[in-house]
Amino acid sequence: MSAGRLIGVGVGPGDPELMTLKAVRALREADVIAHFAKAGRTGNARTIAAAHFRDEVTELPLLYPVTTEVPTADPAYASAIEGFFDDAAAAVARHLDAGRTVAVLSEGDPLFYGSYMHIHFRLAHRYPTEVIPGVTSLSGCWSAAGLPLARAEEVLSVVPGPLPDAALAARLAGDDAVALIKVGRHLGRIRDAVAAAGRLDGAVYVERGTMADARLSPLAATDGAAAPYFAVVLVPARRRSTA
Amino acid sequence: MSAGRLIGVGVGPGDPELMTLKAVRALREADVIAHFAKAGRTGNARTIAAAHFRDEVTELPLLYPVTTEVPTADPAYASAIEGFFDDAAAAVARHLDAGRTVAVLSEGDPLFYGSYMHIHFRLAHRYPTEVIPGVTSLSGCWSAAGLPLARAEEVLSVVPGPLPDAALAARLAGDDAVALIKVGRHLGRIRDAVAAAGRLDGAVYVERGTMADARLSPLAATDGAAAPYFAVVLVPARRRSTA
Repeated sequence: MSAGRLIGVGVGPGDPELMTLKAVRALREADVIAHFAKAGRTGNARTIAAAHFRDEVTELPLLYPVTTEVPTADPAYASAIEGFFDDAAAAVARHLDAGRTVAVLSEGDPLFYGSYMHIHFRLAHRYPTEVIPGVTSLSGCWSAAGLPLARAEEVLSVVPGPLPDAALAARLAGDDAVALIKVGRHLGRIRDAVAAAGRLDGAVYVERGTMADARLSPLAATDGAAAPYFAVVLVPARRRSTA
Repeated sequence: MSAGRLIGVGVGPGDPELMTLKAVRALREADVIAHFAKAGRTGNARTIAAAHFRDEVTELPLLYPVTTEVPTADPAYASAIEGFFDDAAAAVARHLDAGRTVAVLSEGDPLFYGSYMHIHFRLAHRYPTEVIPGVTSLSGCWSAAGLPLARAEEVLSVVPGPLPDAALAARLAGDDAVALIKVGRHLGRIRDAVAAAGRLDGAVYVERGTMADARLSPLAATDGAAAPYFAVVLVPARRRSTA
């Protein structure tokens, strides 16, 4: 029996209508649909995509270990997470070995900071693999805000919020457009860093950009309290003189 | 009579199946579909999306002026291009004033270095406007290559190929992952800069990533001749020790 196919399926930033035609077809054709979630909760990717699951499809929930009591800087955290991804990849591989096509859901785009990457690193060299790109949460957020960040020869930097203060400051001082992702509990730090760089004017905070409960506001108007993990902060390029 | 709606519609990176459900619906509902192209040619965005046009839809081709004889650094070039976008926006505005919904097609994502941005800057403050995000050419290319560029706390820089040599070198020396877009005739310069930064190993060249005639190769294997404008060069982050 030949091995099944691994498909990383990007389901887009939240609005189910922002799934691609190709993602919908992949879900209809899959034997198994795997999706990440926290224990006891439905993952966002499954919520976005579930309307397209066949009734008889096999679901494979990949449930993150509960690690809230372990600081993320603790080696025990890294160890628990790596072990979880090893186990998740092994569970996917068992279906592939049985000749089944396995679609692994990913919010946004699978290879853009997505959990799917951990499966890809472990399995893509061992099985026929396809990645179906999706609309990123960033595209969803700047579209909701109607805010182009960079154009022409301007550089756009995608900067994860957990970056240390000094690196964050350097990015905001020297770069053209900056899109901050994985904002979460770093919102206060990010707001302070953007203000220190003199770029608070024009910076925008967006959470759940493509959803009915989207929240958009000037970054200056946020209170700096913890934001959702998937919230973003958009800092447009300083406009050059057109002269 | 109330004004019509302006909709920037991202049609994705090339494979028509990478259009979103929302983009397809917008095209079916539009009164007018505007698309950019060079005179005498069908634009890529129209080619991607045309299967979803209603028979009775009004098409509004926006034809770039022929400027090949004017160097892009020449103020006459900037002037011709700005005048063209002014005229294009005015043509769209006439339909909006007549109460029609106008979908402006954009390859990839409308607010990610797309021509639609020039219409958006001129009209979004004057008319009800919606932007439908799309899969970027970058996502299409790294998915075709199966190559995640950045993860965890790594920064991803999106760098336009026309950037001057010194700026290009600085990016490649200091940044984590670098995605070079608008490669075109800059491929040779880019390859030299990546090599000079010691990052040729692992760097990948991709053109038409999601199309049947996609071409992927190690950057080192390219001959440096001019590439298509939409080709990309992907330079993954240097992997940190996992210790």
